[in-house]
Amino acid sequence: MTGKATVTPWEVKGNIDYDKLIKEFGVSKIDDELLSRIEKHAKKKGLELHHMLRRGIFFAHRDLKFILDEYEKGNKFFLYTGRAPSGHTHMGHLVPWMFTKWLQDVFDVELWFQFPDDEKFLFKKELSLDDTKKFTYENMLDVIAVGFDPKKTHFIVDTEHAGIMYKEALKVAKCITFSTAKSAFGFTNEQNLGAIFYTAMQAVPAFLPNVLDGSRRPCLIPHAIDQDPHFRVSRDVIPKIGYDKPGSIQCRFLPGLGGMISDGKMSSSSGDNATVFTIDDAKTVKKKINKYAFSGGQATIEEHREKGGNPDIDVSYQWMTFFEEDDEQLKKLYSDYSSGKLLSGELKSILIEKLNSFLAGHQERREKAKKVIDKYIYRIKSP
Amino acid sequence: MTGKATVTPWEVKGNIDYDKLIKEFGVSKIDDELLSRIEKHAKKKGLELHHMLRRGIFFAHRDLKFILDEYEKGNKFFLYTGRAPSGHTHMGHLVPWMFTKWLQDVFDVELWFQFPDDEKFLFKKELSLDDTKKFTYENMLDVIAVGFDPKKTHFIVDTEHAGIMYKEALKVAKCITFSTAKSAFGFTNEQNLGAIFYTAMQAVPAFLPNVLDGSRRPCLIPHAIDQDPHFRVSRDVIPKIGYDKPGSIQCRFLPGLGGMISDGKMSSSSGDNATVFTIDDAKTVKKKINKYAFSGGQATIEEHREKGGNPDIDVSYQWMTFFEEDDEQLKKLYSDYSSGKLLSGELKSILIEKLNSFLAGHQERREKAKKVIDKYIYRIKSP
Repeated sequence: MTGKATVTPWEVKGNIDYDKLIKEFGVSKIDDELLSRIEKHAKKKGLELHHMLRRGIFFAHRDLKFILDEYEKGNKFFLYTGRAPSGHTHMGHLVPWMFTKWLQDVFDVELWFQFPDDEKFLFKKELSLDDTKKFTYENMLDVIAVGFDPKKTHFIVDTEHAGIMYKEALKVAKCITFSTAKSAFGFTNEQNLGAIFYTAMQAVPAFLPNVLDGSRRPCLIPHAIDQDPHFRVSRDVIPKIGYDKPGSIQCRFLPGLGGMISDGKMSSSSGDNATVFTIDDAKTVKKKINKYAFSGGQATIEEHREKGGNPDIDVSYQWMTFFEEDDEQLKKLYSDYSSGKLLSGELKSILIEKLNSFLAGHQERREKAKKVIDKYIYRIKSP
Repeated sequence: MTGKATVTPWEVKGNIDYDKLIKEFGVSKIDDELLSRIEKHAKKKGLELHHMLRRGIFFAHRDLKFILDEYEKGNKFFLYTGRAPSGHTHMGHLVPWMFTKWLQDVFDVELWFQFPDDEKFLFKKELSLDDTKKFTYENMLDVIAVGFDPKKTHFIVDTEHAGIMYKEALKVAKCITFSTAKSAFGFTNEQNLGAIFYTAMQAVPAFLPNVLDGSRRPCLIPHAIDQDPHFRVSRDVIPKIGYDKPGSIQCRFLPGLGGMISDGKMSSSSGDNATVFTIDDAKTVKKKINKYAFSGGQATIEEHREKGGNPDIDVSYQWMTFFEEDDEQLKKLYSDYSSGKLLSGELKSILIEKLNSFLAGHQERREKAKKVIDKYIYRIKSP
């Protein structure tokens, strides 16, 4: 029906079959046993299992069992995730960050947050280092607004922290041939030398904290599934240079407003209207959802009341599965929309209200973040 | 007669035809006009034209005319050379450094001296970053012992100065494809990602001083001819990122003790006996020259007296062309050896005396260097 899906760190398109991706990428599905182990730890902190786990939004992993085994033995892992600063933050970027914040709360662990400005500069022809610098700052505000603990959260920016990262990246890079990178990332001979090297920089935060303090803590990487090729390669290399294979936990993509069929992943490069930015005001959000959110409803109100809508392809409903924490509420939306009781316009209004209420708080925290940004940036110790 | 010569930044072997290299590499021969322009500046400082220029040891260049034009207009260039720290310093390494010191004296200019520890780590399988760290220190002592002005000389070590270099290397790397690197360096798909990226790091010191102080000074790179492929590539790129093409001036290789035919370039990896290290004591030097320096003499003293020796293939004589500054003295050695008046053993004694006298002073300065090393290492300004 639709063309073959593409999922690489730099391109996601087509109708993604996540079960197929699990096989292709070689990740494991998160099973009930793992879920109840995580739930047990959440309960200790008075928290429910995160709705993104309950609903399979975070659906796959690598070595999560090892990470939990170590944790239960008293060897706390650290978290590593990141954001390549090529534009403003949109709702899709927030998905893994919100979940990562929950992991930080439940397990009381450090987070190392990478801003690979080098990556975006190298892979986007028109992007300058001035652009990436600007977006690094803007994106940092959003990360802080998510609510990470400043005492346990460390930002590293590849170009700014190269003094501690480059040396470690060399150790990784020495173990990866161009052949391997070619097959993992689909590079051609026309790829530039920096882009070819870059994956080594993305591997570094998975063991850097251990380099810096001489400890031997495992690393858990929450990330969207498209980044898996990087970690697939680096997981083979990291043990060779003396550190544990990092574990990882993968999420699906928040669909673009245009719908899940045309857009695998919401991307700011598909145009401003395919996405809701964290800096959009309430009026803009309302307009975007009303105008661009693909609807699973019928052509006329009469037909909709009679046949009902299809929540499985309705973008507004899909977005609610990411942002509405209450299962009962969500269940009701599903049945009301399917039965035709809830109209597409009404469903959109519910999403608009949800997003704008969230963004009001987010934007307030984002504004306050400007004053505390220095607390988050990892300070390199003088030699 | 002999096999095809190979000259790449990582391998030099065979009997090198320098005139052919000029054509192959696309460098220009240093002509009399350039020589007299340089001589004019030397005279102003009360110095003769350097014997390595008089004898064509420094024999080729790129854009030297532009460098002198700028200098004469009052826009002083800076010098850039380096040493990849994979072992102890030998006499061959000193050749471009001694000449560079003379250039610093004549033109009163800054020198940026790079220690690309990343390169050696990446290209030598068995070498660790601990090894390169050790040799960086040892090699620095030798560079200081050559006599560079500490006020005008800045050491940069790729892994230690990555905080200021990596960002600049990215700009270079973005402009070079794997295809280009493949044809310039002969890479295969089995090359590691760090080695592929490395040439971008070697390009950086050619414009870094301008990045650091916002000036627009040209760069002159004295180096052995095998490094030319790096600069051939980076000269195409550097103007694209807003700086002048660096000029360069190339020297021949000091032949290995085994002779110019078997060894293109003296290499410490060809075994300790192919080379004289700066830390060798007088007895070791004597033994090495007597035992291993390839002789151009005849089989017996009688035959030698009768037919004379061949200084053109005699390693001891060849070494004297690098280290004996006095032209008259050298001329006499040539004719006495050719006529049979000077025996091979006597010629060796002259070289041994020359080297040991030089090394006595060098080793004393090298010892003193330990106390002033910090004055030479470029200190990164805190942001």
